[in-house]
Amino acid sequence: MNRLQVISRQFTAVSEKSDVGASLSQLLVHDNADLRRAIFEFLKDDIYTPNYDLSLAEFRELTLQRIIKFASQNFFSVRDYMNDPRKFMAALECLSYVDFSMGIKSGVHFTLCGGSICRLGTQKHHDALLDKIDTLALLGSYCMTELGHGTNVFGIETRADYDARARQFIISTPSNTASKYWIGGAGQHAKVSVVFAQLYVGGKYEGVNAFVVRLRDDAGKIMPGVRIHDIGHKMGLNGIDNGQVWFDNVRVPRDGLLDRYGTIDDNDNYVSPIESVSKRFGAMIGGLTTGRVLIAQGCIDAMKMGLTIAIRYSADRPQFGDTRIMDYLTHQRDLLPALAETYALHIAMGDLKTLIDKASSDTNKDVHIMSCGLKAAASWSAIDTLHKCREACGGMGFHSLNKIPELIKDSHITSTFEGSNPALMQQVAKSVMEGTNATERIMISSMMLDKTGINAFNVLEMLRQRRALLAKEAVSFQGTSTAITLLLNKLGWAHVEHMCMQSLVSKAKMVDGELKQTLLEVATLYGTSVVEKHAAFFLMNGMLDRNGVVLVSQCIDGICNKWGSNGALPALSLCDAFGIPDHLIRAPIAFDWRQM
Amino acid sequence: MNRLQVISRQFTAVSEKSDVGASLSQLLVHDNADLRRAIFEFLKDDIYTPNYDLSLAEFRELTLQRIIKFASQNFFSVRDYMNDPRKFMAALECLSYVDFSMGIKSGVHFTLCGGSICRLGTQKHHDALLDKIDTLALLGSYCMTELGHGTNVFGIETRADYDARARQFIISTPSNTASKYWIGGAGQHAKVSVVFAQLYVGGKYEGVNAFVVRLRDDAGKIMPGVRIHDIGHKMGLNGIDNGQVWFDNVRVPRDGLLDRYGTIDDNDNYVSPIESVSKRFGAMIGGLTTGRVLIAQGCIDAMKMGLTIAIRYSADRPQFGDTRIMDYLTHQRDLLPALAETYALHIAMGDLKTLIDKASSDTNKDVHIMSCGLKAAASWSAIDTLHKCREACGGMGFHSLNKIPELIKDSHITSTFEGSNPALMQQVAKSVMEGTNATERIMISSMMLDKTGINAFNVLEMLRQRRALLAKEAVSFQGTSTAITLLLNKLGWAHVEHMCMQSLVSKAKMVDGELKQTLLEVATLYGTSVVEKHAAFFLMNGMLDRNGVVLVSQCIDGICNKWGSNGALPALSLCDAFGIPDHLIRAPIAFDWRQM
Repeated sequence: MNRLQVISRQFTAVSEKSDVGASLSQLLVHDNADLRRAIFEFLKDDIYTPNYDLSLAEFRELTLQRIIKFASQNFFSVRDYMNDPRKFMAALECLSYVDFSMGIKSGVHFTLCGGSICRLGTQKHHDALLDKIDTLALLGSYCMTELGHGTNVFGIETRADYDARARQFIISTPSNTASKYWIGGAGQHAKVSVVFAQLYVGGKYEGVNAFVVRLRDDAGKIMPGVRIHDIGHKMGLNGIDNGQVWFDNVRVPRDGLLDRYGTIDDNDNYVSPIESVSKRFGAMIGGLTTGRVLIAQGCIDAMKMGLTIAIRYSADRPQFGDTRIMDYLTHQRDLLPALAETYALHIAMGDLKTLIDKASSDTNKDVHIMSCGLKAAASWSAIDTLHKCREACGGMGFHSLNKIPELIKDSHITSTFEGSNPALMQQVAKSVMEGTNATERIMISSMMLDKTGINAFNVLEMLRQRRALLAKEAVSFQGTSTAITLLLNKLGWAHVEHMCMQSLVSKAKMVDGELKQTLLEVATLYGTSVVEKHAAFFLMNGMLDRNGVVLVSQCIDGICNKWGSNGALPALSLCDAFGIPDHLIRAPIAFDWRQM
Repeated sequence: MNRLQVISRQFTAVSEKSDVGASLSQLLVHDNADLRRAIFEFLKDDIYTPNYDLSLAEFRELTLQRIIKFASQNFFSVRDYMNDPRKFMAALECLSYVDFSMGIKSGVHFTLCGGSICRLGTQKHHDALLDKIDTLALLGSYCMTELGHGTNVFGIETRADYDARARQFIISTPSNTASKYWIGGAGQHAKVSVVFAQLYVGGKYEGVNAFVVRLRDDAGKIMPGVRIHDIGHKMGLNGIDNGQVWFDNVRVPRDGLLDRYGTIDDNDNYVSPIESVSKRFGAMIGGLTTGRVLIAQGCIDAMKMGLTIAIRYSADRPQFGDTRIMDYLTHQRDLLPALAETYALHIAMGDLKTLIDKASSDTNKDVHIMSCGLKAAASWSAIDTLHKCREACGGMGFHSLNKIPELIKDSHITSTFEGSNPALMQQVAKSVMEGTNATERIMISSMMLDKTGINAFNVLEMLRQRRALLAKEAVSFQGTSTAITLLLNKLGWAHVEHMCMQSLVSKAKMVDGELKQTLLEVATLYGTSVVEKHAAFFLMNGMLDRNGVVLVSQCIDGICNKWGSNGALPALSLCDAFGIPDHLIRAPIAFDWRQM
């Protein structure tokens, strides 16, 4: 069966089940369907055609021009960050389908820089800056991370001393470890930056505050007192010009302080509605959620692309006679649980976005924890899944034209930036522990699979119990803060895995018929794969016996075989439902490898 | 503690234990210590300084010039492939410390092309070609893989028809899927190639045979009838020019047949000492072992480099006050079992090389299986370990200057080429199954850890029993050939893991005192990490109970804590024993990240 035959069989399958295919596809669009379609259509423009053999300078210039051209279409505005966050995110999400360089460089400009001006600034900042952000006249960056301070942002060294006489702030870099590091856009293009620094006013420490600082003038010349080193070549994301920045007593006017959460009054005193320095800081960095959501979604979308390419190729690549490589259980096991996981993460992301819509002081904490957990899980899963996709395609997965290499190289840093995953998982775990009583007895349903067979509902219950047992273990843990990290990481994952399973099952309950059955099957494969991965845990806690583990594995094998063997129609249809247009898939092996 | 302090503390530690450090380092050198030292010294030459921002054309040219300069030093000759294989391999092994592009391009030329001429050719081929291989006057390539035929080499489509009248072979590419694909060197530089084709003589099929075919003339012009497409940009290894090659009835003189295993006699008949077409083919591709050994060793050496960089940085990078990131158990768990695994794989490689020295028809099968298993295990482990190293270094691991990105990108294809890992693990598994009796009773030592505590010896026994149980399960398996692959993969791994543990323990038995204790500790961490990974298996088979699993995990935590906390001296010393000179480590974070 060659690709044309696959397509024709798919066509038959879709015709037969057209309602399921269409409704599944619809269910996966979180919002702004028309906008997304329009942007995808616009991305047919030749400037978005991939080119893999570019020098650093060429790739950066191309990425800049791609963003400028996109911004000129006015699909959205940075003001949507405040007025229509779903539209803001939807527009930026589409860009990672071109490549992560374009997505992340746009994210740094519109979300980190523009979003910070929206959230932390006040009317005067909005009036002065946002139009120029929209047109890219004032390309933005975000100076938070320092060479010596990544995860511990509260420990940054950069200082801002208020000079009351001049009514200016003096920004300074007291040591090399205080240099701002990895600053996207700073290497070459950025003209302005939101700079985080420890503020001192009249000798009094006022905690970390954010300032708008010019890095380059309108002509692109670096400002006096600013020193910039181009960080150069990276594993991926080479369309982005990262820089290292030092401030040698750079003077910033009083209005440079983004003063939503604290301002300098007419008597040159620092005044803030939030007394505590650390709480004030917490409020300030709360805005990082949008960036985290975009990265999580970008990772999930990368999984969709990688899996679509790998599954299409595998379903069409023969080995030893008529057998397709997708027919092998090893191949199915590598790709199909990852496909179910992609669904789980994507549907949980939809729930997170819905929660963001209802944002209030009651839900802020939930949004924060959910975005931390999903960012960590999605980025780790993407790295893992894309690796499997590369390998599943053999040499073809190493060919840049087939897109998987770029996805791997670009996504590798997603487990580190916008909060390193271990740190995020710790926050998730600690929030679970807050709601956990060390002495509470947890009811264990032992060998539940023997009694009722395997289905999405009892697997969900198993994942709930796992989370509860790990939470209890964590609150009872006797040991050092460096020793508990492994347990907290497990608990963070257990929370996210239960949450994703919950999202899938809830979504299934909301629909009917074949669509419901499809979602429940996805949930079953996702859930049983999680259970199998942690089989030792379930055995040790009496929740499964040997026979139960065998049943779980057989259940996985069964769904894998159903989805992947004999032409892999169900797997292909599940990929088709992602709705990625051909001009964004592009990989030749996703169409007809025989013509390569 | 900054890097200088780390170094000074290391110096103290090494002084105190100088015998152990030196003897451990010595024990890790498989052979040819002086040659390796001399080559490492030569690689200080400026041409070997990394440069990460090169176009495809520039990087390919640089790689070629690097190899030409190296070859001009006469450290070894392609004739060593036959006369002194250990020297041949040692010299090539050193090159992957520059980068994999140089290592693999040299490997294609000297091992695949040159080695095939040595092994499959006869005196006339040696006389005509080997000197030119040594000087690179005749740059070589190896045309085996086809677009449609990777793993199933026996199924290639390229034809060689013998024209008795002209006493020539006619090489032809009957379809696009028959085009030779991924041919290293063919894209730009190769002048000659060893081409595999299905031979027909007087209409009779004589199986796959190998021919020396000119791709380009001495001036570099492509030969008549040869068509070449440059494959272009890849995930890594971009110093190598891979090509796609079609042959349009290219005529090759009778002497072009590499005729060790079959020749055309004076009556224009094909005569061979090996009757069976498939056995003859088996003899011909037996020579791929050297390539596999070099790739396995290259992967292990990449692990050494990645771990040395990541552990040095982690031991010196503070987070939240005085805590170093290496102090966290999560960090230790990511890097230190991988360090023990690197030792295990490296020492097992030494055993394989010793076995190759004693090569005879009795050991050929063992050499083949051991090289298949170690190539698969080392490449999978390298990909996994380098990923952990990248993440352990956070953003710094994404910085090309820090070398880990290049190691990741270049090594990703090692799980595919020179035999795809799943196919190799199947061969390993099938060989284990041949020695397995389905009805034999396997004695299980239940809960052995309760009785005797954990040590390298009882963990070795556990791994032996696991291998035996999986082998029995495999020979009893009732199912299709596509369904058994998952089990065969597990069995292949179980065989390799047992073998590596065996190598480590045997090596420890040969030495005394502190060195013995060190090796046994390495073995214990390696073995318990393997047991923990497969904890569900041991629980299901009654070899461990809940308490046993907890003990295993505590044992891992204990060694990790000892090696990694409080300055990580044992871990740093274990890295130092790899003996990689600073000019080949190069990554700034392995020296002083504060100066970046």
